[in-house]
Amino acid sequence: MRKELSETIAKIAPLFPEAVEAARRRQEKLAKPPGSLGKLEDVAVRLAGITGELKYLPDKRRIIVLCADNGIVEEGIGSAPRTVTAAQASNMTRYRTGMSSMAKAFGDEVQVVDVGIADPYDAPEVVNCRIAPGTRNFLHGPAMTREEAEQAILVGVRMAEKAKEDGVKLIGVGEMGIGNTTTSAAVLCALTGLPVESVTGRGGGITDAGFEKKKRVIRDGLALNCPDPADPVDVLAKVGGLDLCAMCGVFLGAAAMRLPVVIDGLISASAALCARRLCPGSAEFMFPSHASYEIGYRIAAEELGISPWLQLDMRLGEGSGCPIAFRIIEAACAFTANMASFDEAAIDDSYLDEIRGKDCFSV
Amino acid sequence: MRKELSETIAKIAPLFPEAVEAARRRQEKLAKPPGSLGKLEDVAVRLAGITGELKYLPDKRRIIVLCADNGIVEEGIGSAPRTVTAAQASNMTRYRTGMSSMAKAFGDEVQVVDVGIADPYDAPEVVNCRIAPGTRNFLHGPAMTREEAEQAILVGVRMAEKAKEDGVKLIGVGEMGIGNTTTSAAVLCALTGLPVESVTGRGGGITDAGFEKKKRVIRDGLALNCPDPADPVDVLAKVGGLDLCAMCGVFLGAAAMRLPVVIDGLISASAALCARRLCPGSAEFMFPSHASYEIGYRIAAEELGISPWLQLDMRLGEGSGCPIAFRIIEAACAFTANMASFDEAAIDDSYLDEIRGKDCFSV
Repeated sequence: MRKELSETIAKIAPLFPEAVEAARRRQEKLAKPPGSLGKLEDVAVRLAGITGELKYLPDKRRIIVLCADNGIVEEGIGSAPRTVTAAQASNMTRYRTGMSSMAKAFGDEVQVVDVGIADPYDAPEVVNCRIAPGTRNFLHGPAMTREEAEQAILVGVRMAEKAKEDGVKLIGVGEMGIGNTTTSAAVLCALTGLPVESVTGRGGGITDAGFEKKKRVIRDGLALNCPDPADPVDVLAKVGGLDLCAMCGVFLGAAAMRLPVVIDGLISASAALCARRLCPGSAEFMFPSHASYEIGYRIAAEELGISPWLQLDMRLGEGSGCPIAFRIIEAACAFTANMASFDEAAIDDSYLDEIRGKDCFSV
Repeated sequence: MRKELSETIAKIAPLFPEAVEAARRRQEKLAKPPGSLGKLEDVAVRLAGITGELKYLPDKRRIIVLCADNGIVEEGIGSAPRTVTAAQASNMTRYRTGMSSMAKAFGDEVQVVDVGIADPYDAPEVVNCRIAPGTRNFLHGPAMTREEAEQAILVGVRMAEKAKEDGVKLIGVGEMGIGNTTTSAAVLCALTGLPVESVTGRGGGITDAGFEKKKRVIRDGLALNCPDPADPVDVLAKVGGLDLCAMCGVFLGAAAMRLPVVIDGLISASAALCARRLCPGSAEFMFPSHASYEIGYRIAAEELGISPWLQLDMRLGEGSGCPIAFRIIEAACAFTANMASFDEAAIDDSYLDEIRGKDCFSV
C-alpha cells in the first residue's frame, strides 16, 4: 500500500471520550424529556466526539462529487449513454442537477472532481484529478490496476484534506458515473459474499432484459477476476470504479481530518463500506442520509451498521441525500447550542428523578 | 355546528387537476431518471395542485403551536407537572425550546397560541385565545362542552386564515400541553375503535405503574363518556383537549386557505385525523414529517394514509418534526424550480423511450 494511504489510515483515531461524555451530560440537562430528540441527540453527541466541540456549528458544508466512467458500460448495462457522465458533471458546476440545485438552495458548496471521465466537457470548475479516461471493462480483466485504485483513493483523501484546509465543517459524498450501480453491486457482492440477485437493482431504470444482463455481467466479472473479499483495494481495482475508489478515499480522509461525513445512497454506501473494511474506526465519522430505493443499499447499510434517517424512495445518486441530511445535522446542532437547560427554562426537573436512568419510554 | 366552521369545511376544494398534470409533465422533463427523486417529486406535484404554482417558493413558513392544559392531569398521568405547559409556551416565544431553537436556526416563524393554559406566564408574544383555563377531568364527565370544542377549533381556523393574510406559504402544526399524549390516545381509540393498549405510549416518560394508570384512565374515560366515533367534534369535546381542537382547526383552515400544512408527531397526527374525518378532502393539503416513537403515531398515520419521511425516534412534540420537514419541502421546491430539463442539460433523452411508462425500476 502506498505510504500516503497507510499514513492516512494510521491517523484515524477514536472519538474523544471526554467530549462524548460531556455532550451526553449536556443533552440530559436540556429542558426535554430524556432522550426525546432521539437520533438527533446521538448526532450531537457524536459530533462532539468527532470535533471536541460541544456546540459545533457546521457553517461551511461541501458535497464532494467524484465522477468517472466505467468500462463495463460497453456491455450495455447502463441506464443512460456514457456521455451523460461528462454532461452531468458539467451541469453540476452550474447547480442545475438534482443534487446541486438542492445544495445551492441551502448554501452548500458542490465540488465536482473528475477522477476518470471518458468524454470531453466544458466546465473549468471541475477539478481535474483524472487517473485514466474511465476504467477497463471488467469482463476482460481487472477494471484497473492496484496502483490506479490507490491513486484514485488518494484523490479522495486529498479532497477531504483540502476541505479541512478550506474550513469546511461537514462533508457529503456524491458521484456521477454511468454504470456505477453495476460496479457498486459487484463490490458489495465481493465484500459480503451475498448472491448477485440480493444486491443488484435497476439503477436509473432498465428493461427486464437489461436487468438480467446486468446481473449476468456482475456474476461473470466476479468469476473472472476473483477479487479478494479481505482486501477492499483489490475488490475496488478488479470490479469497482475510479469514482468508488475516490469516494472511499473521501471517507478515509474525512475520518483522518476529524470531519463528519454524510453517506448518500447505494454507491456512496458501498464506498463507505470499503473505507470501513480498510479501517473500522472510520465509520465513527460517517452519518447516514436516506434509504435508497436501490436494494443493495440495505445490505450496505446493514454492514455499515447505519440506520437511514430519510425514507423518500430516492434513487438519483449524485449525493442527493446530502443536502437534506445536512439540515438534520444542522437541526441537531441548533437545539444543542440554543435550547434552554431546565434551570434556564425555569422548570424544576425533580419530577424526572423517578424515571431517569430507567426504561420508562419503550412500550 | 357553528356556521363559521361549516363554512370553512365547505370551502375545502380538491387539488387543481390541471396544475397536478402540468407538474407531473414538468417532473418528466427534468434531467433525471424518471421518478428517481421519489417522494420529493410527489411533494412538488401536490404543492402545484394545492397552490396552482409550478414553482412554489415557501419563503415564509410558520409553525403554529397550540397550547392548553388538560384536566385529566390531576389523575397523575402526565410525565411532568401542569406548570410545564405555561413555562414552555413562554420559552417557545424566546426560541429556547427544542422545536423553536431549530425553527430559529432555519428562519421559520413560531406562533404560540394559548387556547387554554391553566397557569400564569409572562410572555406577551403568546397570542391569547384562551377558551377556558384548561379542560375538565374527563373521568368526571366531558372534558369540555361541544360549544367550547367548536370555539377551540375555530381558534385554529382563524390562525390558518391569519397565516394566509400574513403571506405565510407553509404551515407546521405543533403543541404544548401536559397530558396531551393521554387525550390523543383517547381520541384515537374513540375514532378507530382500537384497544387502548395499541395506541397508548409513555409520552414524555412514565414509570410502569404510571403507564398502567394512564391506560386505565383512558379506558374509564371512554366508558364514562361514550364519544360517538362518527362525530369527531363529540370525540374531541368528551375526551380530547383544547389544543387538539385548535390543531384540528389549523388543518381545516389550512386546507380552506389552500396552504400546505405539515403534521408533527402523535398529537398533531391525531388532530389531523379529526380534521380528515370532518372533511376527507383536507388530507390532500397535509404533509407528514417524522415517525414518532409514540406507538399511537403509527395508527394515526395509517388512518391518515401518510408515510412519514423521517425515522429519527423523536418523541418531543412541540412541532419538532416541522423544521426538518420544511427543509424536505424546500428541497423539493428547489430542484423543481432550478434543475435543467433534458434539453437544457444537453442530454438527448431518446434512450428513455425504451423504459418510459414501463415498470423498469422495481426489483
